[in-house]
Amino acid sequence: MSFTEKKLSSSRVFDGRIFKVERDEVELPDGSHSFRECVRHSGGAAVLFNRDGKIALVRQFRYLYGEELYEIPAGKLNEGERADVSALRELEEETGFRAKKIIPLAEIYPTPGYTDEIIHIFYVDEAQFCGQNLDEGEFLNVEFFSVGEVGAMIDDGRIKDAKTIIGFYRFKEKFFR
Amino acid sequence: MSFTEKKLSSSRVFDGRIFKVERDEVELPDGSHSFRECVRHSGGAAVLFNRDGKIALVRQFRYLYGEELYEIPAGKLNEGERADVSALRELEEETGFRAKKIIPLAEIYPTPGYTDEIIHIFYVDEAQFCGQNLDEGEFLNVEFFSVGEVGAMIDDGRIKDAKTIIGFYRFKEKFFR
Repeated sequence: MSFTEKKLSSSRVFDGRIFKVERDEVELPDGSHSFRECVRHSGGAAVLFNRDGKIALVRQFRYLYGEELYEIPAGKLNEGERADVSALRELEEETGFRAKKIIPLAEIYPTPGYTDEIIHIFYVDEAQFCGQNLDEGEFLNVEFFSVGEVGAMIDDGRIKDAKTIIGFYRFKEKFFR
Repeated sequence: MSFTEKKLSSSRVFDGRIFKVERDEVELPDGSHSFRECVRHSGGAAVLFNRDGKIALVRQFRYLYGEELYEIPAGKLNEGERADVSALRELEEETGFRAKKIIPLAEIYPTPGYTDEIIHIFYVDEAQFCGQNLDEGEFLNVEFFSVGEVGAMIDDGRIKDAKTIIGFYRFKEKFFR
């Protein structure tokens, strides 16, 4: 049985810098009508950077949660930008490390009930230090942790960010089993 | 060094059924001003339900991605509702299985750049079938897969949903190592 929902109309209700919001009227599988509230996002790119057995985490204040979070380096895709290009750019901007070789680890849907964002997660283990180069208004620290430490931080809830947790487990699946 | 951002003012730009959007003016650590676009969400609850070694996945059309996704049973917290209560309610509504004992697996931040949603993931392995009871306008199928099958579906990208992937790896960490 197919559960497809058909778009009947769409109205843009917010036009932001990070995302847009649309409210679409849809036809449901039983023919009835409903509305879907849609956060439209250009997508994200993230990198698990393994430097000689240590994983780079950025610690930054996240306004939405009012706390500092540990996350792998990541950012928003520029319009039309390839995810791997974006990931390498963010890695260099945030950590100062420039890499050439990048390996896909996962593509994830962070919360499919209301956003269309796809987060592309990559793996890097060879990079050269060239100097951090943050965006204006971006403030963060870069710290390196062993594989065991990152696992423990997930276990005890110090790491809560979805892309970071998935990047770490995909990395372990790929290289440690 | 502290990177706290201070709220200066907030304006509600969208007032939806699933989420609200606010645009806040903030003071950055260097004293400059900027804006933060905030999706405000009441939170989510999800359950990894293990029935005699098989894991329940719901297959449903997700309008935001225009495709059917496999996800663990989940839903939105009602205002003021406890996450474990919500998780048991969603499990019963979506799969028809009623459980009493529920174990926390993880709390995750799905995409911290623009939403404040916390997804609470739980584990259940004892439940009785009482009959599915879907919300109006909700259409989904429930299917059971072995632990090996779910692992393979994550490996090959058939499962992309973040809470499902994290729930599965937390379950494996907790019970299989």
